[in-house]
Amino acid sequence: MKTDIQIAQEATLWPVTKIAEQLAIPTEEIELYGQNKAKISLSAFKRLQDRPNGKLILVTAINPTPAGEGKTTTTVGLGDAMKQLGKKVVIALREPSLGPSFGVKGGAAGGGYAQVVPMEDINLHFTGDFHAITSAHNLLAAMLDNSLQQGNPLNIDPRQVVFRRVVDLNDRALRKIIMGLGGRTEGVPRESGFDITVASELMAILCLAQNLTDLKERFAKIVVAYTYEGKPVTAADLEAHGAMTVLMKDAIKPNLVQTLEHTPAILHGGPFANIAHGCNSVIATRMAMKLGDYCITEAGFGADLGAEKFYNLKCRLAGLQPDCTVIVATVRALKSHGGVAKGELNQENLAALEKGFGNLEKHIENMAKFGVPAVVAINAFPTDTEAELAWVEERCRVLGVPVALSEVWAKGGAGGLDLAKKVVETIETKPAAFQVLYPDEVSLQEKIATVVREVYGGVGVSYTPEARKQMDRFGELGYGHLPVCMAKTQYSLSDNPALIGRPEGFTVQVREVRLSAGAGFFVAITGAIMTMPGLPKRPAACSIDIDEDGKIVGLF
Amino acid sequence: MKTDIQIAQEATLWPVTKIAEQLAIPTEEIELYGQNKAKISLSAFKRLQDRPNGKLILVTAINPTPAGEGKTTTTVGLGDAMKQLGKKVVIALREPSLGPSFGVKGGAAGGGYAQVVPMEDINLHFTGDFHAITSAHNLLAAMLDNSLQQGNPLNIDPRQVVFRRVVDLNDRALRKIIMGLGGRTEGVPRESGFDITVASELMAILCLAQNLTDLKERFAKIVVAYTYEGKPVTAADLEAHGAMTVLMKDAIKPNLVQTLEHTPAILHGGPFANIAHGCNSVIATRMAMKLGDYCITEAGFGADLGAEKFYNLKCRLAGLQPDCTVIVATVRALKSHGGVAKGELNQENLAALEKGFGNLEKHIENMAKFGVPAVVAINAFPTDTEAELAWVEERCRVLGVPVALSEVWAKGGAGGLDLAKKVVETIETKPAAFQVLYPDEVSLQEKIATVVREVYGGVGVSYTPEARKQMDRFGELGYGHLPVCMAKTQYSLSDNPALIGRPEGFTVQVREVRLSAGAGFFVAITGAIMTMPGLPKRPAACSIDIDEDGKIVGLF
Repeated sequence: MKTDIQIAQEATLWPVTKIAEQLAIPTEEIELYGQNKAKISLSAFKRLQDRPNGKLILVTAINPTPAGEGKTTTTVGLGDAMKQLGKKVVIALREPSLGPSFGVKGGAAGGGYAQVVPMEDINLHFTGDFHAITSAHNLLAAMLDNSLQQGNPLNIDPRQVVFRRVVDLNDRALRKIIMGLGGRTEGVPRESGFDITVASELMAILCLAQNLTDLKERFAKIVVAYTYEGKPVTAADLEAHGAMTVLMKDAIKPNLVQTLEHTPAILHGGPFANIAHGCNSVIATRMAMKLGDYCITEAGFGADLGAEKFYNLKCRLAGLQPDCTVIVATVRALKSHGGVAKGELNQENLAALEKGFGNLEKHIENMAKFGVPAVVAINAFPTDTEAELAWVEERCRVLGVPVALSEVWAKGGAGGLDLAKKVVETIETKPAAFQVLYPDEVSLQEKIATVVREVYGGVGVSYTPEARKQMDRFGELGYGHLPVCMAKTQYSLSDNPALIGRPEGFTVQVREVRLSAGAGFFVAITGAIMTMPGLPKRPAACSIDIDEDGKIVGLF
Repeated sequence: MKTDIQIAQEATLWPVTKIAEQLAIPTEEIELYGQNKAKISLSAFKRLQDRPNGKLILVTAINPTPAGEGKTTTTVGLGDAMKQLGKKVVIALREPSLGPSFGVKGGAAGGGYAQVVPMEDINLHFTGDFHAITSAHNLLAAMLDNSLQQGNPLNIDPRQVVFRRVVDLNDRALRKIIMGLGGRTEGVPRESGFDITVASELMAILCLAQNLTDLKERFAKIVVAYTYEGKPVTAADLEAHGAMTVLMKDAIKPNLVQTLEHTPAILHGGPFANIAHGCNSVIATRMAMKLGDYCITEAGFGADLGAEKFYNLKCRLAGLQPDCTVIVATVRALKSHGGVAKGELNQENLAALEKGFGNLEKHIENMAKFGVPAVVAINAFPTDTEAELAWVEERCRVLGVPVALSEVWAKGGAGGLDLAKKVVETIETKPAAFQVLYPDEVSLQEKIATVVREVYGGVGVSYTPEARKQMDRFGELGYGHLPVCMAKTQYSLSDNPALIGRPEGFTVQVREVRLSAGAGFFVAITGAIMTMPGLPKRPAACSIDIDEDGKIVGLF
């Protein structure tokens, strides 16, 4: 069986100019980055302002097992299948983070015969967007420490600096540092640390900004520290937002690539799905909707996190109107939610399937609460039995939700035709009546309680004293109108990864609340959230190599 | 008077494809980065292997005053002038570092009407080469700390880690840090710090590598730490060199841009001129020599550092044969070397000129020692008087060295025609007999002593006990054959910035010796060397801004 990188390396790519031609993008709106990557000028929005928007399809999933349920693969394959049906479709995806490529094997550009290419470039520096974020983020951090060093005119309390630095690598040893050592010419000593670039608030901002001016205004609002009097200090106070925006002048433009079947794909941005909202940029989604009749996009983790934030944060803040949700599930993961151990997943087990199906059922119910019709995609595995597939199909039929087997990993677009037909039919026959689950005006507590009750199915929320204090403070500072970005485990509907399936009767504990004033949301943190991964005992990097002709081995 | 950025923004650039056409580079050897930047495939070397090399011209300077003597401006203007003479010329330059753009105003892409463009992009992310270096460098650092964390199988002494991290910003507070804090899951605590990316050994390696395989072999040899037994630990021991090279697969390709007059310019690499050799990449220089009949390049700081290292390090290690040296001087700087204070430099002062001329004279003599004929370029300033210019011209005539007034800053190539004619005539009439000043086999002490005696004009070298110990250790470890990279002040021929003009009778103190085993040289450090700049009280970043149409203000 071929590996993802083998399939990708054997593919014949079209020049990206030909992909742009398919979408009738004029040459002057395209900036090439080599033969197979391009940035699209934001002036395309102006040219297309009177064109009706394409339909917006979100691909999400049940609560995943550690291997992932194949959301990106399904998104790519669904796009290829819709193209085979003659539809004008544009895929919108996140850009992968560089760091993890060198940690544990595994790219983030789909898999099998449903991939976006050039996969090596996409998984390495791509068009430099993440490096631009790293630079702009760390410029702000350097200007903050410089202000401390140069007489501290803003009266910043060095113990209350909340803005860390970032690097796009898995670098555990930078999580907690003491910096500014060495005496009076070498900075002001203080505790700090590094996060991975995708955890930067700038990444979340890039993914919510509508244009360059909006980006700058959001940068200006980033709260980096507090004064000794407890007053927030922003990037604007440091006069950093203009220069930060200059560094992002190209990064704000979405990137055009293609699938193995030459379907256009726009990859742009990639914020964390825990402390941020986990979706590609609003600009990419809107561009895909302007250029195509269908935009297919995805959101990180399961639907309790990804879809919830896609709707309650991204669609709310950007004024997007989604038309359909595809919920990806696998028979293996449903059995796993039914309590089957990893080693036993290859065996048919209808009882476990029934037990675990509650997880999918809950997500189906949730999508209805947002007023968006759902389609279930069963991502096929060779170990799935006829009886298991028939059972899932029958249960979905009873629930009144269309279901299709997706074989795009093995067959590309041809393996997703049934799914594509059901998605198109759903959009044509079931108009969406999208709504967010809570208004801006209610209290932060009520926002959190709504998500826990309506989406997770929990009975209540508890707060640590620290979280209460933080919420009070943010409310006093005038940030009370912001929506909430929930940070919790992806493995359970609850905040306890051990509660698989469809847990009930649980409460969720919020232990910390953070403010992302530039992005425009609060982060409510339940459990331990890792914003800087580590490398494993033997990093994937040890096996990665390249020969004189540029042929890469060991990457994915 | 227009600023550099105004002149650059008003320029009409040719598509870089047209620049490539001028050089008969086939389309398949060009990778576009937008309309005006491109990478050239290394396969061009194979295609052109039988073409004779163009002539190699190095632009260097007297010991500079803090404002710089206009080396890059002269290099660019000389290129434009030679093009006006009908010569097929290619300029090779360093890429500027991103960090300083946000510190103190001032780009590094020439000035006035002798600039390379697109200057904003060149001074920002350009084609991402420096970000690739930052990533590859920090990957190696992360793998080192991961090895410490994962049971330390290589027996690394955490107190003897010599490889720091890098960031392409001026960030003083990162100079000295303690990392790995937080307990047993968060890394091994140790002292470390960050340098600016251009100070990375990887930058020096990129600029000395001949191809991808050579790059990887040099990466493999980087010494990152020592074991408890004092044995060097390399990137190869950490199995990092393959992945590092993958990260550099595009960065190794040289970048093609143009001057304001559409002369081809290859910008590639930009190592520090103190702890490294301060020249653009060997690949860029060789590519320019293969594509043009004349390659004009430059080296950092004055000729005592830049030219010395260009010849003793770069030409030695890459087997290059230079044909001519252009020494840039200004009347102001010569008067400054004659003891005139900054505020008085606008007044004619022939006595000071005579006193300060010794600095230029010494550099002229030095170039002869390398067997390379020299031409003096007087970079014109409006305050220069007729009498001053005539005096310098006459003195050069007496010394038998051609001299020309260069007005390229104000007039572009038209202001450099006299210089260009003298350079061409020199190459045609005075064949070079290039030689390095010392062989590989002599001791490190003798290499240092030779440079101090022959190039600086000093009488001897003293060593701190630490430096002696380091030299002994490196000799024992088998690195004794490497050449030396001198790190000293750029403002004097000696190691004391106060000793202006042509000092005599001085000794130089070497206080530390470092090993750059991958780059392939020792660094002998005299005085304090800064590898991480700080930001000033009010960073230039505070005045930098961009509007919705992407128009940038305040950058340079």
